[in-house]
Amino acid sequence: MKELLISLQPDEGPALYEQIYQTLRNEIEGGRIPCGERLPSTRLMAKNLSVSRSTVELAYDQLTSEGYIEPKAGSGFFVCDLSNLYTLPAPRETKEREPETDGQAKTLPFDFSPYDIDAEHFPFQIWKKINKEVLVDEELLSSGDSLGDIRFRRILCDYLYHARNVDCTPEQMIIGAGNEYLLLILMQLFGNLGRVAMERPTYMKAYQVLDQTGVELVTVSMDEDGICVEELERTGANLVYVMPSHQFPLGTVMPLRRRQELLAWAGKGEDRYIIEDDHDSEFRYIGKPIPALQSRDADGRVIYLGTFSKSISPSLRMSYMVLPPKLAKRYQEKLGFYSSTVAATQQRLVCRFMEEGHFERHLNRMRGVYKAKRDFLLHLLKGKKWIHTILGDNAGLHLVIELNTALTEQELLEKAEKKGIRLYGTNDYFTEGDSCFSHVTILLGYGGLALDAMEEGIRRLDLLLTEPDANARSVI
Amino acid sequence: MKELLISLQPDEGPALYEQIYQTLRNEIEGGRIPCGERLPSTRLMAKNLSVSRSTVELAYDQLTSEGYIEPKAGSGFFVCDLSNLYTLPAPRETKEREPETDGQAKTLPFDFSPYDIDAEHFPFQIWKKINKEVLVDEELLSSGDSLGDIRFRRILCDYLYHARNVDCTPEQMIIGAGNEYLLLILMQLFGNLGRVAMERPTYMKAYQVLDQTGVELVTVSMDEDGICVEELERTGANLVYVMPSHQFPLGTVMPLRRRQELLAWAGKGEDRYIIEDDHDSEFRYIGKPIPALQSRDADGRVIYLGTFSKSISPSLRMSYMVLPPKLAKRYQEKLGFYSSTVAATQQRLVCRFMEEGHFERHLNRMRGVYKAKRDFLLHLLKGKKWIHTILGDNAGLHLVIELNTALTEQELLEKAEKKGIRLYGTNDYFTEGDSCFSHVTILLGYGGLALDAMEEGIRRLDLLLTEPDANARSVI
Repeated sequence: MKELLISLQPDEGPALYEQIYQTLRNEIEGGRIPCGERLPSTRLMAKNLSVSRSTVELAYDQLTSEGYIEPKAGSGFFVCDLSNLYTLPAPRETKEREPETDGQAKTLPFDFSPYDIDAEHFPFQIWKKINKEVLVDEELLSSGDSLGDIRFRRILCDYLYHARNVDCTPEQMIIGAGNEYLLLILMQLFGNLGRVAMERPTYMKAYQVLDQTGVELVTVSMDEDGICVEELERTGANLVYVMPSHQFPLGTVMPLRRRQELLAWAGKGEDRYIIEDDHDSEFRYIGKPIPALQSRDADGRVIYLGTFSKSISPSLRMSYMVLPPKLAKRYQEKLGFYSSTVAATQQRLVCRFMEEGHFERHLNRMRGVYKAKRDFLLHLLKGKKWIHTILGDNAGLHLVIELNTALTEQELLEKAEKKGIRLYGTNDYFTEGDSCFSHVTILLGYGGLALDAMEEGIRRLDLLLTEPDANARSVI
Repeated sequence: MKELLISLQPDEGPALYEQIYQTLRNEIEGGRIPCGERLPSTRLMAKNLSVSRSTVELAYDQLTSEGYIEPKAGSGFFVCDLSNLYTLPAPRETKEREPETDGQAKTLPFDFSPYDIDAEHFPFQIWKKINKEVLVDEELLSSGDSLGDIRFRRILCDYLYHARNVDCTPEQMIIGAGNEYLLLILMQLFGNLGRVAMERPTYMKAYQVLDQTGVELVTVSMDEDGICVEELERTGANLVYVMPSHQFPLGTVMPLRRRQELLAWAGKGEDRYIIEDDHDSEFRYIGKPIPALQSRDADGRVIYLGTFSKSISPSLRMSYMVLPPKLAKRYQEKLGFYSSTVAATQQRLVCRFMEEGHFERHLNRMRGVYKAKRDFLLHLLKGKKWIHTILGDNAGLHLVIELNTALTEQELLEKAEKKGIRLYGTNDYFTEGDSCFSHVTILLGYGGLALDAMEEGIRRLDLLLTEPDANARSVI
C-alpha cells in the first residue's frame, strides 16, 4: 500500500491504539485505502510508529471486529469491500431536538381528575425509612422471582383475605407492572382467542389494552345493579370484565343477587371466566367494604385484579392478579418463562410497609381524608340548579354528575378548560351505541384536589353553568 | 317476621352496626329469615335494640349493597332471593398452603449462569444516597410519563449516543419493565402480524415472548459473521431480531459488511425492520465497543433494545427501546394510552445515577472486574483436554465451550448438578433443526461467581470430565 501517515499524540487524546484505529478507519471509509489493499504487518507498523506490537494488534483487532479489514491466514490484513456503506449519521451537534410535548395535556389549576390521589397525607418518613432499609439486602439486587417476591405475595394474600375475603395462595398470585400488563399476559394465557365482554360504559384503558391483543370485544349494557347477565349470555362471550365493588365510571355496586347470576353464567361453560377488577375497593365511606366477587367463587371462575395505584401511588406501577388454581397451573406451564416486571426492592418495600402495619394505618387515614374531601365536594354542590343527579358517592375517588345544561359535553369541557378547570366527560366511555345517560354527565374526581382548589373550581364551574347559554335547558 | 334475637355487645367486638349487619346476614344466609320476609323498620329495630336509628340504617345499607335485602318504596326492607347462593369459601384457618416451589430450580454452590452479575462491586452507598434523595420529590409519587420520565430519557439518549453511537431523541424512546414487555408492545405496534426471523441459536426468552404473541416465527442459521442474510431473504420475514454486538449465546460479533447487508435487506421492503438487541454491549474486553447497528441506519429501519439488567441489576427490571421516528409516531397514535411500567422513583434514581457520572464509573470498574474474572476462568481452563474450542471470549459475561466428551449434554448437566455445579447447555437454543455445534457445547457464565467458587467449580468439572465414561470420545 501507499504510504500512510499516522501522527500519534502519545501524551494527549485517546489511547494510542485508538488513534491508530481511528486514522485507519477514516482512511478506509474515505476510500483512501481501497478495498483489497494489504495493510502493513503489525510488526512493521509498530516499528514505524515506535509503539509496541500489541498496541497495533489491538487496533487491527478492532478494525477486524467492525469489518473494516479481514485477516487472511499467513498473509496479513486486507481492507474489506465497503461499497454498500450506508451514510453515516449526521453529527449530533447539528441536530435540533423536537419540541417535547409527549402528548401530555397541559396542567390546569383545577383538575377534577378521577385518577389522581392525595399525596399530602402519605407517610413519607416511614416510606423513606423502609426504603433505606430494604436496600441493605444485597440479595435483592441480583435475584427476582418471576411471579413476584414470595414474602410479598404471602402478606398480600393475607391482606386480601382479611380486607376483601379473597381466598388464594401465593402460587395463584402474580405481581405485575400495572393492570395493563397483567391484562396483556392474561390474554396470552387464553391464547389471544375468544370473545371478551365488558360493561358499557367501562374503564377505557382496559378496553384499549384488550382491543390491542386481538381478542373480539363486545360491550354489554348495565342497569342499576350492574352488567345485564341475560344480554351477556346472548353475546356468546367466554370472558367478562367487570368491576363489581365499584364500577368505573358509574360507581354502581353490584348486589349479591347479580353476583350470583354472574357466577352462574360462568358456571355454564367450561371455558367461561370472570375478570374482577377491584380497582378502588379500599375506599368505601358508608358501611364496610363489600367482599370481592372472588370470595363467592367456589368453582374457580374468577380472576381477581387489584392495584396499589390508588392505595399507595399511581406512579408505583404495581398491581396483582389472582388466578384460579387451574389457570395458575396453566400460567406456570405456558408463561412461566416471563420475568417479573416489578423491581425486587420495590416489592420488598411495599411488603414491609404491609408487614409492619403501615399500609392498614395509611388506608384507614386515607379513608378519613377522602371521606372529608367527598363530603366537602357534596357540600359545595348542594342546591346547585345545574345538578340533575349525583351517582356513585359511596365509594372511590370521584362523583358522577348528571347535569342540567344546554351545552354538549364537548362544549362544556372546552369552556371549563378556558376557566382553568379540567373536567372529565363520559361520552368516551361508550365505545358502542349511545350513552346510557339522558343528560350530559361528567366525573368529578376529588382525590388529588386540596379543599381550597376544590372550592374555587366549583365556584368557577357554577358561574360557567349559570351563564345564559349554558342553562338554557333548565330555563325552558 | 318472627322474633329476631340480636344480642349486641356494645363494649367489645366490632361496631354496633356491624354486629346488627352480621346477625341479620347470618340469619338470611341460614334461611332463618326467608326470602320475601319484611324486616322491622329501622325505627322499630333501633328502639328494640336501644341504639340510634342511624346505626340500624348503616346495617341495612350494607345489607342492601351486598344484595341480602332490598328496599321497596314506602313499605320497608325485604329479604332477597338467595336460592342460587354459591357455597361460601371454607374458612382460611383450615386451609393448608401448597409447598412453594414456584418452579424455581434449587440453588447450587457453583452456578455458571450466563445471566448472573457481580453484586459485590456495586456502589451501594451512592445508590442508597441517591435513592434517599429522590424520595424527597413528592411529585414523583403522583405523576408518571407514559414513555418514561423525560429527564431520564434525555440523559439516556446522551449516554447511548456517546457509548453506542445510537442517534435518537427522547421522543423515540420508551422506558419499560424489561425487554420482554417491550417486545410485547412492539409486536402490538405491528398488529401481532407478519413474520419474524430470529438467529438460530437465539435468546430463548425473546423467542418465547414472540411466540406467544401469535406472530409467525422462523429461525435463520448463522455463520461466523452472524445471521445469513440470503437465507433471511428467502424466509419472507419482515422483521428480524438480531444481537449484532454480541450474539447470545454464541458470542459472535457481526462485522461491518454483514451489518451493511442486513441494512440493505431492510431497505428492500417498506415494512421491513431490524430489532437490534444490544443486551450486554457494555462489557467488551478487547478494543473499544463496536457502535450499534442503529448508528448506521439512515433509513429508520432499526429498533434498538437495551437493558440495565447487566449494567446495574437484573432485578431492577428496567429496559429501553428506541423506535425509528415513523414507528415512534405510530406508537403515540396507536399505543400512547399505555401507562409506564416502571416506577417513577426508580427512573429518577437511575437518571441521577447517570447524570452524576456514577453509571459511567461503575461500568468502567465493572469492565475491569469482569475482565479479571474472564481472564481467571480462561486461566483455569487452559490446557484442559476436554476443551475443544472456546468461543465468545471478547465480550459479555460468559464463554461458549465446545467439549470433547462422550457424554450427552443432558448427561453432563445431570452429573454436574450432583457435584453441586450448574451448567447451561445450548441444545435448548436450537428451536428448529439441529445444533450448529459438532460437539456438546455449554455456556460458562462468570459474572456472578467469586474467584474461589469459580476455581472449585472448574476443579470439580475437570474431575467429572476426565472420568473414564466421560472422556471416552477423546480416548478413541
